[in-house]
Amino acid sequence: MQVTVSRHAHFNAAHRLHNPKMDSSTNQELFGKCNNEYYHGHNYELIVSVTGPVDPETGYVVDMKWLSDLIKEKIENRLDHKNLNIQVEEFKDLNPTAENIAIVIWNILRNEIKEGLTLKVTLYETPRNFVEYSGH
Amino acid sequence: MQVTVSRHAHFNAAHRLHNPKMDSSTNQELFGKCNNEYYHGHNYELIVSVTGPVDPETGYVVDMKWLSDLIKEKIENRLDHKNLNIQVEEFKDLNPTAENIAIVIWNILRNEIKEGLTLKVTLYETPRNFVEYSGH
Amino acid sequence: MQVTVSRHAHFNAAHRLHNPKMDSSTNQELFGKCNNEYYHGHNYELIVSVTGPVDPETGYVVDMKWLSDLIKEKIENRLDHKNLNIQVEEFKDLNPTAENIAIVIWNILRNEIKEGLTLKVTLYETPRNFVEYSGH
Amino acid sequence: MQVTVSRHAHFNAAHRLHNPKMDSSTNQELFGKCNNEYYHGHNYELIVSVTGPVDPETGYVVDMKWLSDLIKEKIENRLDHKNLNIQVEEFKDLNPTAENIAIVIWNILRNEIKEGLTLKVTLYETPRNFVEYSGH
Amino acid sequence: MQVTVSRHAHFNAAHRLHNPKMDSSTNQELFGKCNNEYYHGHNYELIVSVTGPVDPETGYVVDMKWLSDLIKEKIENRLDHKNLNIQVEEFKDLNPTAENIAIVIWNILRNEIKEGLTLKVTLYETPRNFVEYSGH
Amino acid sequence: MQVTVSRHAHFNAAHRLHNPKMDSSTNQELFGKCNNEYYHGHNYELIVSVTGPVDPETGYVVDMKWLSDLIKEKIENRLDHKNLNIQVEEFKDLNPTAENIAIVIWNILRNEIKEGLTLKVTLYETPRNFVEYSGH
Repeated sequence: MQVTVSRHAHFNAAHRLHNPKMDSSTNQELFGKCNNEYYHGHNYELIVSVTGPVDPETGYVVDMKWLSDLIKEKIENRLDHKNLNIQVEEFKDLNPTAENIAIVIWNILRNEIKEGLTLKVTLYETPRNFVEYSGH
Repeated sequence: MQVTVSRHAHFNAAHRLHNPKMDSSTNQELFGKCNNEYYHGHNYELIVSVTGPVDPETGYVVDMKWLSDLIKEKIENRLDHKNLNIQVEEFKDLNPTAENIAIVIWNILRNEIKEGLTLKVTLYETPRNFVEYSGH
Repeated sequence: MQVTVSRHAHFNAAHRLHNPKMDSSTNQELFGKCNNEYYHGHNYELIVSVTGPVDPETGYVVDMKWLSDLIKEKIENRLDHKNLNIQVEEFKDLNPTAENIAIVIWNILRNEIKEGLTLKVTLYETPRNFVEYSGH
Repeated sequence: MQVTVSRHAHFNAAHRLHNPKMDSSTNQELFGKCNNEYYHGHNYELIVSVTGPVDPETGYVVDMKWLSDLIKEKIENRLDHKNLNIQVEEFKDLNPTAENIAIVIWNILRNEIKEGLTLKVTLYETPRNFVEYSGH
Repeated sequence: MQVTVSRHAHFNAAHRLHNPKMDSSTNQELFGKCNNEYYHGHNYELIVSVTGPVDPETGYVVDMKWLSDLIKEKIENRLDHKNLNIQVEEFKDLNPTAENIAIVIWNILRNEIKEGLTLKVTLYETPRNFVEYSGH
Repeated sequence: MQVTVSRHAHFNAAHRLHNPKMDSSTNQELFGKCNNEYYHGHNYELIVSVTGPVDPETGYVVDMKWLSDLIKEKIENRLDHKNLNIQVEEFKDLNPTAENIAIVIWNILRNEIKEGLTLKVTLYETPRNFVEYSGH
């Protein structure tokens, strides 16, 4: 009997879409105004979903407060009010598209969530664009 | 050819997180301010999703008005403006976490939905916390 | 490593629920006020989701701008500010329920999206009613 | 000591923007695709706001249930699932723009609300367009 | 040159509508299911708005972080996860309608906000009901 | 008889809160993590509201399509996907707080809107913070 519990979080960050392995004009052609060398930014809305059995003692899959604190410590503290390209290690050589940000977040959280539980990350880059990643 | 149709509903209720089989201090430790003996409450937002083939006569999986009336009769009438711990039979001995409320709702509705159709319940406890249950 | 990317779009349209193969009183009985012969309408909110591998060059599953332009050209231009029953070819003989509209949109977009990618369409008829279709 | 209480409601309707006193090409020029002769439609979201003193007996400006029932009886029953141009008396000779619909709703409700109370109507035609009217 | 800055906050609480100065049957008649003796509850969404001149040094009317911390300390800490009727001093003899809760919050915050600034409180009891109070 | 019509728009931008007339440590103290020298960013949601009489010919205060195109041309084209501090003239010497951005937008649009009409700008910096400016 598996239940999924989900928690919303959010962070604000600057980024530009840019693949450092390609030249300027290719980057410009691929990413258009998202390639702006001076950056733009987003209010990222993050939903972290954990699936597993309900503990009969607590009635919880996981404690939502624990999950919320985990997201704060591991994700918000590292990404909030940052320039993703410059200030976040993982994007030094990785283009910070919504897809790649979701994968990076998933990889960080996967280490913190017990093995029997399934993890999914949903990331809204804007209210009109979002991505989902479940690790496979 | 399977389509999923979903209907939003809502109910307001009081609850406290409390496992009557455990002592006070364990409950306090596990559930913190959610264990407040005088209760707190939520506007629960409920999404009921039914998956199945589209009836070629009606173009419906199920009639949304029928689904909406069903939710009103079986769920809202029993849970809306109630104290879940005291006034809802199923939570006499069951901690009314979002997980357990979703399972209780799913079990009630499963009996009312035709066997060939798949049922999923999504329950927002707050705009920032939600759970999903599909019966397995 | 599969990621799902989703894009919101919207169109406003008039419709009535009506199966031209059934008589008036059956239509009235089945569809109630949604059968109103003078039509009613909705702000349809459409979410198009594409699942596939992340291109290591771009960091994209698909370019969201391309997806947004595709939805505009193939869906919004054909459905926005239209009477679905009268002015949209596909609904000449097909009841424009949310289920059938989602299937029609999926079929149109499926032809435009590369074969290895998975497509899902979510359609909100109102903020309280929505349907999902993945092609099987 | 004045408090404003507001209640959300909604109705779905078809309409076209069309001034019957002007010829076809002027209407087409002024209203573009909103002039479509076969109609389009919207999920209108209505917010009715009443301002006045708080009754010391009840703690209410007005009973929200009374306000909700009033909106249902006087507005939703007349406009929901209707073609505004054809089926709603007030728009026989009046272009059903959001502005005019808000004024019509305000005029209907003004008669039902006690004189000492202030009335405001907010009408969302889409999630991106809305109008407000306070009667002067 | 006056600008209004607004900050969202939220708290979950149990309450019942009940005027202790009136007898049971009058309370029942006036407040219906909201009078349930075992309480129900809500996710209250609070918007605090402050109007004043923009400080030329900071570009702020007030520091949003300061405002957010103030709401947390003075309002959330006192109301969140509480039973308003039993555990919040101000409602010992005052019916905790949305109107009265907004007035209580306004009165608390008014003491903390500099005199030249205007204060407004908006309180959503549910996504469909809200009240506004500006102190006069 | 005055009606207010409002139109939503949005733009994504990078910024940092920084008053170039003050030294680094004062800026850091005043603006904390918002002062990050590498910028962060937001999805700004903009609501432009125009109040005036309803034209009896059109039923409009102003044509919403005209208003939407105006916002696109004058605001979105200048601010979207930009670094406000570096790439937007008005913020060369002005701290791009939400308050100041709203004032800049109001000043730009005021020149484009007919004199008899009232203009108000609402700007959401995040879903939890917003500001309003009406020009006085």
